[in-house]
Amino acid sequence: MGGIKMRIKVIVPVSTDIWNKMIEEAYSKHKDPDTEITIVNIKKGPESIEMIYDEVWAELEALLEAEKAEKEGYDAVIDYCFGDPGLMAIKEALDIPVVGLCEPSIHIASTLGRKFSVVSVGGMKAKGMVLERVKSYGLEHKLASVRLVEIKVLDIKKDFDKLVEALYEEAKKAVEEDGADVIVLGCGSLLNIAEILQKRLGVPVIDPGLAALKYTEMLVKLGLKQSKKAYPKPYEKKRTM
Amino acid sequence: MGGIKMRIKVIVPVSTDIWNKMIEEAYSKHKDPDTEITIVNIKKGPESIEMIYDEVWAELEALLEAEKAEKEGYDAVIDYCFGDPGLMAIKEALDIPVVGLCEPSIHIASTLGRKFSVVSVGGMKAKGMVLERVKSYGLEHKLASVRLVEIKVLDIKKDFDKLVEALYEEAKKAVEEDGADVIVLGCGSLLNIAEILQKRLGVPVIDPGLAALKYTEMLVKLGLKQSKKAYPKPYEKKRTM
Amino acid sequence: MGGIKMRIKVIVPVSTDIWNKMIEEAYSKHKDPDTEITIVNIKKGPESIEMIYDEVWAELEALLEAEKAEKEGYDAVIDYCFGDPGLMAIKEALDIPVVGLCEPSIHIASTLGRKFSVVSVGGMKAKGMVLERVKSYGLEHKLASVRLVEIKVLDIKKDFDKLVEALYEEAKKAVEEDGADVIVLGCGSLLNIAEILQKRLGVPVIDPGLAALKYTEMLVKLGLKQSKKAYPKPYEKKRTM
Amino acid sequence: MGGIKMRIKVIVPVSTDIWNKMIEEAYSKHKDPDTEITIVNIKKGPESIEMIYDEVWAELEALLEAEKAEKEGYDAVIDYCFGDPGLMAIKEALDIPVVGLCEPSIHIASTLGRKFSVVSVGGMKAKGMVLERVKSYGLEHKLASVRLVEIKVLDIKKDFDKLVEALYEEAKKAVEEDGADVIVLGCGSLLNIAEILQKRLGVPVIDPGLAALKYTEMLVKLGLKQSKKAYPKPYEKKRTM
Amino acid sequence: MGGIKMRIKVIVPVSTDIWNKMIEEAYSKHKDPDTEITIVNIKKGPESIEMIYDEVWAELEALLEAEKAEKEGYDAVIDYCFGDPGLMAIKEALDIPVVGLCEPSIHIASTLGRKFSVVSVGGMKAKGMVLERVKSYGLEHKLASVRLVEIKVLDIKKDFDKLVEALYEEAKKAVEEDGADVIVLGCGSLLNIAEILQKRLGVPVIDPGLAALKYTEMLVKLGLKQSKKAYPKPYEKKRTM
Amino acid sequence: MGGIKMRIKVIVPVSTDIWNKMIEEAYSKHKDPDTEITIVNIKKGPESIEMIYDEVWAELEALLEAEKAEKEGYDAVIDYCFGDPGLMAIKEALDIPVVGLCEPSIHIASTLGRKFSVVSVGGMKAKGMVLERVKSYGLEHKLASVRLVEIKVLDIKKDFDKLVEALYEEAKKAVEEDGADVIVLGCGSLLNIAEILQKRLGVPVIDPGLAALKYTEMLVKLGLKQSKKAYPKPYEKKRTM
Repeated sequence: MGGIKMRIKVIVPVSTDIWNKMIEEAYSKHKDPDTEITIVNIKKGPESIEMIYDEVWAELEALLEAEKAEKEGYDAVIDYCFGDPGLMAIKEALDIPVVGLCEPSIHIASTLGRKFSVVSVGGMKAKGMVLERVKSYGLEHKLASVRLVEIKVLDIKKDFDKLVEALYEEAKKAVEEDGADVIVLGCGSLLNIAEILQKRLGVPVIDPGLAALKYTEMLVKLGLKQSKKAYPKPYEKKRTM
Repeated sequence: MGGIKMRIKVIVPVSTDIWNKMIEEAYSKHKDPDTEITIVNIKKGPESIEMIYDEVWAELEALLEAEKAEKEGYDAVIDYCFGDPGLMAIKEALDIPVVGLCEPSIHIASTLGRKFSVVSVGGMKAKGMVLERVKSYGLEHKLASVRLVEIKVLDIKKDFDKLVEALYEEAKKAVEEDGADVIVLGCGSLLNIAEILQKRLGVPVIDPGLAALKYTEMLVKLGLKQSKKAYPKPYEKKRTM
Repeated sequence: MGGIKMRIKVIVPVSTDIWNKMIEEAYSKHKDPDTEITIVNIKKGPESIEMIYDEVWAELEALLEAEKAEKEGYDAVIDYCFGDPGLMAIKEALDIPVVGLCEPSIHIASTLGRKFSVVSVGGMKAKGMVLERVKSYGLEHKLASVRLVEIKVLDIKKDFDKLVEALYEEAKKAVEEDGADVIVLGCGSLLNIAEILQKRLGVPVIDPGLAALKYTEMLVKLGLKQSKKAYPKPYEKKRTM
Repeated sequence: MGGIKMRIKVIVPVSTDIWNKMIEEAYSKHKDPDTEITIVNIKKGPESIEMIYDEVWAELEALLEAEKAEKEGYDAVIDYCFGDPGLMAIKEALDIPVVGLCEPSIHIASTLGRKFSVVSVGGMKAKGMVLERVKSYGLEHKLASVRLVEIKVLDIKKDFDKLVEALYEEAKKAVEEDGADVIVLGCGSLLNIAEILQKRLGVPVIDPGLAALKYTEMLVKLGLKQSKKAYPKPYEKKRTM
Repeated sequence: MGGIKMRIKVIVPVSTDIWNKMIEEAYSKHKDPDTEITIVNIKKGPESIEMIYDEVWAELEALLEAEKAEKEGYDAVIDYCFGDPGLMAIKEALDIPVVGLCEPSIHIASTLGRKFSVVSVGGMKAKGMVLERVKSYGLEHKLASVRLVEIKVLDIKKDFDKLVEALYEEAKKAVEEDGADVIVLGCGSLLNIAEILQKRLGVPVIDPGLAALKYTEMLVKLGLKQSKKAYPKPYEKKRTM
Repeated sequence: MGGIKMRIKVIVPVSTDIWNKMIEEAYSKHKDPDTEITIVNIKKGPESIEMIYDEVWAELEALLEAEKAEKEGYDAVIDYCFGDPGLMAIKEALDIPVVGLCEPSIHIASTLGRKFSVVSVGGMKAKGMVLERVKSYGLEHKLASVRLVEIKVLDIKKDFDKLVEALYEEAKKAVEEDGADVIVLGCGSLLNIAEILQKRLGVPVIDPGLAALKYTEMLVKLGLKQSKKAYPKPYEKKRTM
């Protein structure tokens, strides 16, 4: 018996395509055999998302891409950023499953331990964005801490070893000082790191990009998508841009 | 001794100017003598905001207007919509006080009783937007209910008496069945109604537009604004639109 | 590229094998192509689990089966009952992923809407078992209601249409009166029902048995399992039975 | 157009008048032009309020003063102590707005950041009083910490510089170690300090006495007062003292 | 071996002695053999306590009686009113155990079921007093409802059968409609009723006066009293009345 | 007047009788004169309970002993282990009061201060068991910390002075660093220690074994037991072992 065929569109809500290939490689490796992946970034918007401010610059473009994806016949959409920019609006707009990075990651974390920490790049300025997401998803009481290294998203590729070491140091403190049972990496660009940290730390470390992929495949296979009672179809009205 | 002089820019985050005059009249009547008010709507965006989806269409334009207002030397900005579209991003961007409609209204409600209900137009589809706001501000445990009449925002002016009656019926149920001590009207377009309902219901009814005005004046006079620790200045980076 | 090969042992923690075939059929249909499923029930214990009392009769046997499964080289274990009997003890004992039915189902529900209801059989006496699970997993604030029809688990097969109708009636009330956005069926024996209810209700309906399967596959593919910091290996000591 | 005329009675619930002039000066400077302020202290009671115990000595006198104020035709009453002694009883008794110091301050703090700390004098013995107030107002989840310097209220005037330095040190720790975004000074006698600390700390610092004044003016202008559903008129009955 | 000898002073914080004998009879019947009970009411204050307002009239007198009791060598003090007037202040003042009526009753209720309701007299105006107590003791999430019959405390003795019937009706609704597993009677004057209701309802019904007695005896036997870290000794200072 | 006669069966849910005499001595000293105590351990099970895993090995045997106790005519049952193994199942099964060690201890703690810590043996591996109990009883928000010394339960008797010192060190940190007002010892084997620690620490220290005894006596005297609405009688069905 074969697997379920499905086509997923991954929307990277930044105005640069530097991540697309990296995501494509990771997704090729981890997707189910019968899953087809298309990765696009938005054409206009911020070059990276590190704060709530950046999200506002990305949301409408991401939303329009998502609406286009549904029209193109995709089975699901991934909003590929840990800030889940515009996610609830896209859930309202679409009748196919829509998945962010933060929402599935922290829910999976919540089933693997009693407390989790989010460890990421972007510096302390990014903390508010993470806190708002966790609060909105109702898992604030399970958040041990948010620890962010002072490396900007666009500098991630500069020195991979230094990046891993910095994340490891914070993740270790999260486990030893803050009481985290599980670590959630807080950025979609931190690919190929979770496994390394998991081995060194001895606790589960979640890669949000991969978590989003497997969670989406799971939803499609289960025939599930966001409740249209919670996220109803928007009214028809005049909207200009 | 005279009052404190201040200039407030009111941004109505919809692409129609049909509300501006109504707001201007209400604000002229309720502002402090030394407050100067400028009201602008956004040029592009949704014609009304009734769901999270609409907010995404309005947020960037509202944000840009707010940034412009700071450069123009305004002392404060009001984001004139109960969905508080883009509010946290604007708080990050600006160094002057930024006030929405939902945030001050429900905090004032919280000081006047133990439970409040939000009563508004926009129909049940608008419920998610209100729930997300109340949750984000951490007052979910004080929310008795959200009751929404099936009248669209753009139809508010069609039949004022019917509108008031419909809102009264829901507000009454909020008080008698849901346990609300205070009613918060959930839309900036519901001017000149709070007072009528308050008299009929015998409990406080908060007009969010007026609450925003007086709350803003209060903050300016107290020399207070959003904490830049909670809402730090965005990084410089390339952002296009 | 082929899928990930994995072997999952499904432990049905009741002393009857009447469900095994039904589960096998459903799992054959929904498992990934490269997943191998083995289904066993416990030899001693209660004939059904409807209350916390029944769980105590099942837990040690389920635990022993799970320990055996790990020794047999399985990649994961499913504790196939919505009461998740002994789940945390099994998580402590094992180094492979262990998944119950309630825990993944309500977490998935939590990502599809703001509030969910559990609808099941077993009668009102079963309510405590459900409440304790939801509380233990920290999602009590998202629980709209628990609605249980007065049909015993062992009578499920007697009249399928009546069963579906009874569940539909309660699920409908959960959605319309209690505010549920999502329905979670609260028993592993309610196979082939979620899809019917989902169509009639128009909101997501989660089959906990299938959710457990796909969630387990997801965890294995992501290289994740319960945190041994939260669920540490038991001490060696004398234990008799 | 002129401002709204209003008369506010400020009740200082301690048996000493040493604060009255200081408050009068601060209020003269910060009140709106058309606001009239009358400041009285209670004749019997504790010479300062630092614990729940002291509050019990002050409450009935404060309540009687408040009832008198309503009869005298005042438009609002301020219960000028951060412990808000007897505040809910006064809200029950009166039909005009009644405002304490803690309640408006922490609600304003809640709109300026995600977490606030209360920093004050009175020593660690005063902590319970603050905790009970914050809990009663339902903002406990936003409280980062309570930090109290070991200076008694009656010693505040002895060495202003030392006082400010001690408060600064605790406020700094609240921001850097406890995660506070906003500082709330926790005593009505700490006038002329918030501004100094705010400049040095770079986060909002709220003076509760001034916050009470501006909040009261705001309520009166909005035509709002405590809900008589939450705080109903007391029954007529025999009460002696 | 004999029991533990102890002397308990019961302070009835109302200015009437009409309850003393009734309490004495109930306490004589339920106290341990070696417990000595002294019952006093306050000389000045409200004739009954039905609201927060009444509490303010009673608190200082109750506090002074409690301080006197400690000097007289009593082993414990009971603050005999469900509003627990001045309880935290008395806990601060005394080094012997101090017990109210609400605090032990709802904690006992919390160990007997998942949700409890408070059912009492005093009418809906009394609701705030109960809500504030439950919130202060941190058990708000276990409160199913507060149901109050429109009979004043001073009219309790007028028609016992009618009183019992009215309480029964509300308690029944609390169990059947609100989800209460346990009923807590919300007034110290409702003696000899819990047993009747418990038989008719089939769920535990707690008499707060008797609960206070047995809880106090338990604390004394266990050598426990309020933590002086939470309720520290008040500072010496001038306090007048 | 004599006391209330009652017979309590104490079930020690471990397969060793080494604790029975120690408990008997402590209970003889602290029980009321007319209370009769019978202490039994289970014949099969773990030799000590330090984790959730151990509980699963003990629960059914403890349950069967409890059912036997009810048939033997006991007035109440104590489940003598801080993990309260199988407690809710026993509450369902029995019509007489059933009391664990954790549940009454932390509820008493909750009435003596605002925050409590659990201090015990068993090492950090035991933390999950304690956390799950506190969460299940709904007092998680009052838990300051869980501090566990790395001494195994079966090694308790080896060096009493070292044990006491180790517990004292952790309890001291709980009070000074974690904010605990009250200490709850987290194991039934820690007899004769609470009093020593209480004297040294100056805050209440609760011995859970003694707390269980006096709480049980209190419930019996008050005619109270677990609500059969919350813990309904199990259905008749086939259960084998």
